[in-house]
Amino acid sequence: MGVKVHGVAVSTCTSRVLTILHEKGLDFELVPVNLLAGEHKQPPFLAKNPFGQIPVLEDGDLTLFESRAITAYVAEKFKENGVDLIRHNNLNEAALVKVWTEVESQSFHPAISPIVFQHIIVPMRGQTPDQAVIDANLEKLAKVLDVYEDRLSSTKYLAGDFYSLADLHHLSYTYYFMKTPGASLVNERPHVKAWWEDISSRPAFKKVAEAMTLGQK
Amino acid sequence: MGVKVHGVAVSTCTSRVLTILHEKGLDFELVPVNLLAGEHKQPPFLAKNPFGQIPVLEDGDLTLFESRAITAYVAEKFKENGVDLIRHNNLNEAALVKVWTEVESQSFHPAISPIVFQHIIVPMRGQTPDQAVIDANLEKLAKVLDVYEDRLSSTKYLAGDFYSLADLHHLSYTYYFMKTPGASLVNERPHVKAWWEDISSRPAFKKVAEAMTLGQK
Repeated sequence: MGVKVHGVAVSTCTSRVLTILHEKGLDFELVPVNLLAGEHKQPPFLAKNPFGQIPVLEDGDLTLFESRAITAYVAEKFKENGVDLIRHNNLNEAALVKVWTEVESQSFHPAISPIVFQHIIVPMRGQTPDQAVIDANLEKLAKVLDVYEDRLSSTKYLAGDFYSLADLHHLSYTYYFMKTPGASLVNERPHVKAWWEDISSRPAFKKVAEAMTLGQK
Repeated sequence: MGVKVHGVAVSTCTSRVLTILHEKGLDFELVPVNLLAGEHKQPPFLAKNPFGQIPVLEDGDLTLFESRAITAYVAEKFKENGVDLIRHNNLNEAALVKVWTEVESQSFHPAISPIVFQHIIVPMRGQTPDQAVIDANLEKLAKVLDVYEDRLSSTKYLAGDFYSLADLHHLSYTYYFMKTPGASLVNERPHVKAWWEDISSRPAFKKVAEAMTLGQK
């Protein structure tokens, strides 16, 4: 029996989970959650995730939430399937995967997510993006990407010369970000640009990206 | 040879790392970083952490940053020493440790850290705390703690009936938070209060807390 993912395919956090399921070649069922109807704030969904957020993964009688916890679980359970995203046979490489996974979580994500929100989600609500929020976060993101540019000039991927969970966690937000004017921050940095082109062209992500249509007219 | 921690004992993120080193009974050397002199923004430190933040851990020729990555590395490398903080023998329990570790990172931390910053750090700089920032984040934190109260009414710790990395990650910020008027958010919730009293009275953390004197007159 495959796993169930409760979420929506256009969502950044759902697509992070779908990407690893494709990367590992796993069968899964995507169970749509009607966000417009507030289904994620109703008791049946809250019983799965008390924070009322997508995605949720069900694997047998195990119910998990938080997309990065789900990917870490899948990477661990299926470490022998396909690419080993956590370098489980090498403690030092595994440690560097942890470091750059935390960099995504603590430095990259807090800067890129408000930019994507303002450019993509706010107009869908018929509102006007807040340019001051965008500008402040572009400035933060540029500093993070300066570090990435330097890092990626000595290693092919963030944690080393191997694709890992740390890279995978960047895909969903960067995909939407690249549809905004801020994309120049990536395109101006040759090593970041080459890294982005590499990781976003992996077959597992290309399948997921087909459904990531938020903000398309 | 023990490990080296570059940081300062009063700091929340340094103390997170020190706590796990004590929990695992490891020898270590704390190498002070002169933040006032901007040592963390100078090339020798930036060579260890390009983001210019404490703490950094050195273990032989391995250099790591991001406190939560360091604790995850220590928990993995020394999983047989003392309490097993990652439940490495039980995939489902290990998955729940990942979930609640991410909850700390994505929901708890973003709410509690601005409150601690406004109450403790801002006055040290001779400035006045921004009450609007405090109030907005107290409201967010209360919602997170409502979920914790419910969770901790059925399990003794966040990930289950075992102390884990997920609990440990909460210690440093909550310790300073409990010295602010916001402490009532914890004290009003009986299961959260009992959990806090339990985890903060562990000998490993008590040693670390002795040096956490920020904001003391």
